[in-house]
Amino acid sequence: MSMTLERAMAVVDAGRRKAGEMGLAVNLAVVDGGCNLVAFARMDGAFLGSIDVALGKARTARAFDMETGQLAGLVQPGQPLFGLPAVHPGTVVFGGGIPLTDADVIVGAVGVSGGAVEQDEQVAAAAAAAF
Amino acid sequence: MSMTLERAMAVVDAGRRKAGEMGLAVNLAVVDGGCNLVAFARMDGAFLGSIDVALGKARTARAFDMETGQLAGLVQPGQPLFGLPAVHPGTVVFGGGIPLTDADVIVGAVGVSGGAVEQDEQVAAAAAAAF
Amino acid sequence: MSMTLERAMAVVDAGRRKAGEMGLAVNLAVVDGGCNLVAFARMDGAFLGSIDVALGKARTARAFDMETGQLAGLVQPGQPLFGLPAVHPGTVVFGGGIPLTDADVIVGAVGVSGGAVEQDEQVAAAAAAAF
Amino acid sequence: MSMTLERAMAVVDAGRRKAGEMGLAVNLAVVDGGCNLVAFARMDGAFLGSIDVALGKARTARAFDMETGQLAGLVQPGQPLFGLPAVHPGTVVFGGGIPLTDADVIVGAVGVSGGAVEQDEQVAAAAAAAF
Repeated sequence: MSMTLERAMAVVDAGRRKAGEMGLAVNLAVVDGGCNLVAFARMDGAFLGSIDVALGKARTARAFDMETGQLAGLVQPGQPLFGLPAVHPGTVVFGGGIPLTDADVIVGAVGVSGGAVEQDEQVAAAAAAAF
Repeated sequence: MSMTLERAMAVVDAGRRKAGEMGLAVNLAVVDGGCNLVAFARMDGAFLGSIDVALGKARTARAFDMETGQLAGLVQPGQPLFGLPAVHPGTVVFGGGIPLTDADVIVGAVGVSGGAVEQDEQVAAAAAAAF
Repeated sequence: MSMTLERAMAVVDAGRRKAGEMGLAVNLAVVDGGCNLVAFARMDGAFLGSIDVALGKARTARAFDMETGQLAGLVQPGQPLFGLPAVHPGTVVFGGGIPLTDADVIVGAVGVSGGAVEQDEQVAAAAAAAF
Repeated sequence: MSMTLERAMAVVDAGRRKAGEMGLAVNLAVVDGGCNLVAFARMDGAFLGSIDVALGKARTARAFDMETGQLAGLVQPGQPLFGLPAVHPGTVVFGGGIPLTDADVIVGAVGVSGGAVEQDEQVAAAAAAAF
């Protein structure tokens, strides 16, 4: 497992920089390959309600090894995974969670919450790129 | 943080008066800037199931710094935040929760539940106006 | 069921006065005969951690129809109800919760938390006396 | 409320340095004055089970405005608060959580978990001193 606190902090820091450039205040969370929390930061003024959303996005991205935004289509009424969000508190099915990969192996994920979904996705992408 | 019990009680009392005028029995909750409960009142005959809804509306309004009714459109099927209500137990995504602001800083929120959504919103507005 | 919001508020107010005289800041909760919340107030500066304790004391006092302090002896190691506190989150087994009685029928309870246990008991007694 | 992410990160960093000097791997959490998470870090190799303990220590220290170690004596069998840990999931009643104070006002808390209790207390003290 190649997730370390140093690498997780680099992901968080890159996300903070990107959010700052965009004028956003977000929550950022990084989990390891076991879905367990490694690092978290709430930027000043970020929504309190987004703490759990950021944690949930990181966990969900690793739990299903895909970007959380990819789940959005699958959980709509009439779609195959309708009802998934209620299975486990903290499951998030909209964008902002991205798996972190090392040599093609998923070793964790980052979750970002605080802006509009597309903004969270942009911040998460910048954060993940620092991994 | 300028939330006090006295101010919270004034909000609750104003909501009770408004609900009384409308012939409604509602639950009313006020949280502070940290989403922690300050005051609560259940009017005689108000739904037991609305206790947690009122608490949830107050917490949600502060957690996302917006009226809970603003979330309603965003969480519908096909919309950006579909699935949000399942992230954290107690998240309420229909009207009746309103942030309380002091000199442009959000220092808490009020949540009202017991009537139709539009009625709850009217009571919450009257309650918030007393802050 | 003779619990009303007016009577619950009188209980809360009496407790606030007593706590004020004692120089304490406490949380106060009143539940009805169904263990459901009727009124709550957190005095300025009262422990955040005591919110749930006050709610728990009120619910426990009505749930077992006795003062919560009476449970303390029963739940000690080797005693009959050892392990009870873990059965349901919110069960409180030390003093500060008192049933509220109307014509010998228990119709609710008050819970107080924020001071030392004996202080909470004194405030709860003063609060209950106003019922 | 004078808690900021920058200040919280300084607390976490000071705790990491102290733990490193002691040859420990710990989890560190900082909450604000509303008991809401601001920053978290898990040092490489720290117990997974200590994630929630660190979070719980930080929340408990702010919830009761005291070092969590002060609760240890009060919750023993036969003592006044026996049973407290079961009231609210996440309450931690042994050392390693310390309030963070700004001009005599408690504005948050730090929680550390991963070593022996006395070790966690030493790390938390070093972390809190950086606030």
